[in-house]
Amino acid sequence: MYQLFYAPDTCSLAAHIVLEEVGAKYELTKIDFSKSEEQSSEYLLVNSKARVPSLITPQGILTETPAILIFIAQTFPDKKLVPFDKPFEFGKVQEFNSYLCSTLHVAHAHRMRGNRWADDPDAIVSMQKKVPESVGACYKYIEEIYLKKTWVMGDYFTVADPYLFTMSQWLENDGVDPEKFPRVIEHRSRMLERPSVKNALSAESTG
Amino acid sequence: MYQLFYAPDTCSLAAHIVLEEVGAKYELTKIDFSKSEEQSSEYLLVNSKARVPSLITPQGILTETPAILIFIAQTFPDKKLVPFDKPFEFGKVQEFNSYLCSTLHVAHAHRMRGNRWADDPDAIVSMQKKVPESVGACYKYIEEIYLKKTWVMGDYFTVADPYLFTMSQWLENDGVDPEKFPRVIEHRSRMLERPSVKNALSAESTG
Repeated sequence: MYQLFYAPDTCSLAAHIVLEEVGAKYELTKIDFSKSEEQSSEYLLVNSKARVPSLITPQGILTETPAILIFIAQTFPDKKLVPFDKPFEFGKVQEFNSYLCSTLHVAHAHRMRGNRWADDPDAIVSMQKKVPESVGACYKYIEEIYLKKTWVMGDYFTVADPYLFTMSQWLENDGVDPEKFPRVIEHRSRMLERPSVKNALSAESTG
Repeated sequence: MYQLFYAPDTCSLAAHIVLEEVGAKYELTKIDFSKSEEQSSEYLLVNSKARVPSLITPQGILTETPAILIFIAQTFPDKKLVPFDKPFEFGKVQEFNSYLCSTLHVAHAHRMRGNRWADDPDAIVSMQKKVPESVGACYKYIEEIYLKKTWVMGDYFTVADPYLFTMSQWLENDGVDPEKFPRVIEHRSRMLERPSVKNALSAESTG
């Protein structure tokens, strides 16, 4: 049994979808950012970084999306969501996930979370202005380098796909023109057809 | 045979140290940032993100430090640099590496690379001002949550240790007071005693 702490419209959706993909038994606990629940003393005991997702497992608590996605995939090996037995192919999944957490997600975060990196209100506005360009550059890279076939890794579905889907939900609000990235948008549509994605989105919209 | 593209004083040192730890056969190729070699047409063919590290392997090119570190560890399983057969423990290594690439490294990058996220020179100055605070908060978390024993994962050495060592080299220049984080500084000293670290630093200083 697992417990996923999530917040709607955040990167925790990726872990939620992957829990659905593997058919795990799990409980969902919503952290309401509008009520600053991520700063509550109760939640800080789970994750002192005051972020989502956090996954409580039988062995302990795990945070950070790339770690959680791989952990779930490795715990349900029959679902073959990551090619663990092929170090280079596994490395390519990790490379993509790492790019998403350290570059695309970070570029995106400068729209809403600029106060992590500057205090001056003018600086925060200046950061917001650059988001369409910096996030757009990430999608250009993803479109050209990765999305040549059906899934991020080509012919086979991996945990990289729910992770990309989660971020690509934010593309329009980040001021990026979706018409420039048809493969990203096709990938998003393809993901929306999966029962795992429908279930996760439905649970988060009513949760 | 591997080929590592590196730049001195960057996060590529972590991959370099891990190549030394496993005793891999590898060539080093220096990318001189002062000559903008990361933007050369030759290097962009290796890594169109214009970043280091890049690792050429017999199967293809791998980028992003967390991916490269795990790939090397998995390719040399006898060295036991990552507990692959224990999904939760492996997850904790991944969690730490992911935090370093997406939070600590990003906080640090606002000192020298602010132009990734804003164009206004005043905004870039404002970002630089906050680096001691944002990087310091990361070290507080690492000191309190992870560094309770000899290594990041406790009693056993993993690829997380060279990765932390690499970043902790920048601590003073980031304006963080080392006296506040004695465990981080002890960890750095402990790492400096390893032949892998001595060899990597020596090669990069003369390369």
